[in-house]
Amino acid sequence: MEDENQRQFQPTKPIRCIVKLVDLSNGRGAAITLKNDFERISEKLEIVSQQLRQAMTVSTTSSGKVHGMDWSKRPGFEETSCVVDDFSFQQDLHSSHFIVVHGAGSFGHFQASKSGVHKGGLNQPLVKAGFVATRISVTSLNLEIVRALAREGVPSIGMSPFACGWLTCEKNMASADVSMVAKAIDSGFVPVLHGDAVLDTSQGCTILSGDVIIRHLAEQLKPKFVVFLTDVLGVYDRPPTEPNAVLLREIEVHEDGKWSVVKPTFENLNKQVEFNVAAHDTTGGMVTKISEAAMIAKLGIDVYIVQVATSHSLRALSGELKDNIPEDWLGTVIRFQR
Amino acid sequence: MEDENQRQFQPTKPIRCIVKLVDLSNGRGAAITLKNDFERISEKLEIVSQQLRQAMTVSTTSSGKVHGMDWSKRPGFEETSCVVDDFSFQQDLHSSHFIVVHGAGSFGHFQASKSGVHKGGLNQPLVKAGFVATRISVTSLNLEIVRALAREGVPSIGMSPFACGWLTCEKNMASADVSMVAKAIDSGFVPVLHGDAVLDTSQGCTILSGDVIIRHLAEQLKPKFVVFLTDVLGVYDRPPTEPNAVLLREIEVHEDGKWSVVKPTFENLNKQVEFNVAAHDTTGGMVTKISEAAMIAKLGIDVYIVQVATSHSLRALSGELKDNIPEDWLGTVIRFQR
Repeated sequence: MEDENQRQFQPTKPIRCIVKLVDLSNGRGAAITLKNDFERISEKLEIVSQQLRQAMTVSTTSSGKVHGMDWSKRPGFEETSCVVDDFSFQQDLHSSHFIVVHGAGSFGHFQASKSGVHKGGLNQPLVKAGFVATRISVTSLNLEIVRALAREGVPSIGMSPFACGWLTCEKNMASADVSMVAKAIDSGFVPVLHGDAVLDTSQGCTILSGDVIIRHLAEQLKPKFVVFLTDVLGVYDRPPTEPNAVLLREIEVHEDGKWSVVKPTFENLNKQVEFNVAAHDTTGGMVTKISEAAMIAKLGIDVYIVQVATSHSLRALSGELKDNIPEDWLGTVIRFQR
Repeated sequence: MEDENQRQFQPTKPIRCIVKLVDLSNGRGAAITLKNDFERISEKLEIVSQQLRQAMTVSTTSSGKVHGMDWSKRPGFEETSCVVDDFSFQQDLHSSHFIVVHGAGSFGHFQASKSGVHKGGLNQPLVKAGFVATRISVTSLNLEIVRALAREGVPSIGMSPFACGWLTCEKNMASADVSMVAKAIDSGFVPVLHGDAVLDTSQGCTILSGDVIIRHLAEQLKPKFVVFLTDVLGVYDRPPTEPNAVLLREIEVHEDGKWSVVKPTFENLNKQVEFNVAAHDTTGGMVTKISEAAMIAKLGIDVYIVQVATSHSLRALSGELKDNIPEDWLGTVIRFQR
């Protein structure tokens, strides 16, 4: 499969950034869906979209006028007007350099867990119904994100992994041709992918998570950096709501896959972090989050975990952090140390 | 390309029927979108969904209770309740035998024509914006249709041609792997495809129509029959609003691609029809409609053009017409005459 993928269509321009909108199913880290609120989207999505456009804009001296690309009706709004003439002055975007991946958050999780889609068994009527219901929910979220980006002038294109023909085998990626994603990028679009219910060649079906998608895309398309947008400043040594929680500013990943905190540097932090992180994982998924980021970092791709809709996220998206991390930037960098 | 397609994954069970929801961009023949009403869906969609479920139901002695598969929020409705226990008694459907294809109707047409997506030229900001806007509109419609079908217990799965990786070259189908559609059918789902904005290897982009999609699927997957659901009884010899318009009950397609009306049989009708149909086409697309159907019929696949949400459409969808057309069935059959 690896050989087959290597023969796939590659984009002619290098990918600049893959952005992950982190929305864990348990409501933790919710960047753009509302925690504990079924199928509701945060107003932060508008800021995320604006920041993505800013990060993609070629010229810093642009007029600032945004020409929306969502010309469809919206509930509660007047019909969208489309002024065709505006587009002759449209600024160019570095759009060919970005991919957006989002999870399900408060969309899809209820449907998937109620029916056990991740466990497979499409011959069971409940699983089959849950598969349909999950896809409806996650594609609804995808459409809302695509529309929000388009309204801010980002040429976003929704691409569902299921329709892309991506398959798993025993829940691992079995077939996931990225050539259509690459072609969309080459044509100047920003593909927007999402965690999805997919067919599994071994158990019939499963859930393909946004994290697995982003790792696969990073392996295949080698972006310059990856940004995880989340609802806290970055990764902490314990749940961020706990007193004395310390923000981990820089994590190094080693050849053997192990990682260590290099900043802050105070004595014995590493040992302490490992302990706390493990304890944390039973309720949250902190180790999973770092592990996913570490797997991407091991490819030589810097990963920034940063709070959504802040000046810090804008700086991360803009690629400012590539060479050095300013002292006043708050977030977590995960890097490969050769 | 033909050879390549022939090596594609084929479904293990034969396809029973491909259903086209006819919604011409000019508002004619609108089956499920509202004529002259921007991005609005007809209430007939609910009846279409019910009829599809009825046509797919294995047993005629089913309890009649429908277990919906859309568990997402709907504007103006209470949150959907999902009663998991119900599904243990869920009746089985012949779902693996159906594909639904829809056009854009009052969705997408405005966006596409305003920007000239069909003419290509993605380097023009207006065309690029129109491409994004068109996809937003047509995927919104697709989601609504998938949800309507799911609410009636049809295991529907939205599949966008763009995401499926389908490409055109000079507006003709250049690459359109149907294997994922076949896999979805084999897994017991009803794929729902739609006319879409796609990449074109020659001119950058274009519009891939629902008619071209349905012809391609018919060629590749050889369904037993194809049903076009439209807003009039079938094909007439002149615009159906004109006095004395005659419903053409049966059309034969010959080896050379030409077609003739075999029913009704009154003298000189053929000649008259050809004249009127040609005249009609300047304002409507009647010849196009028959020509598309004739190309499918030439594959040996019967095509029924029938009014949506009537007893006639239910009979057509149920496969009742395969061997003989009852006198009291109103619609147009287009068949290959060897």
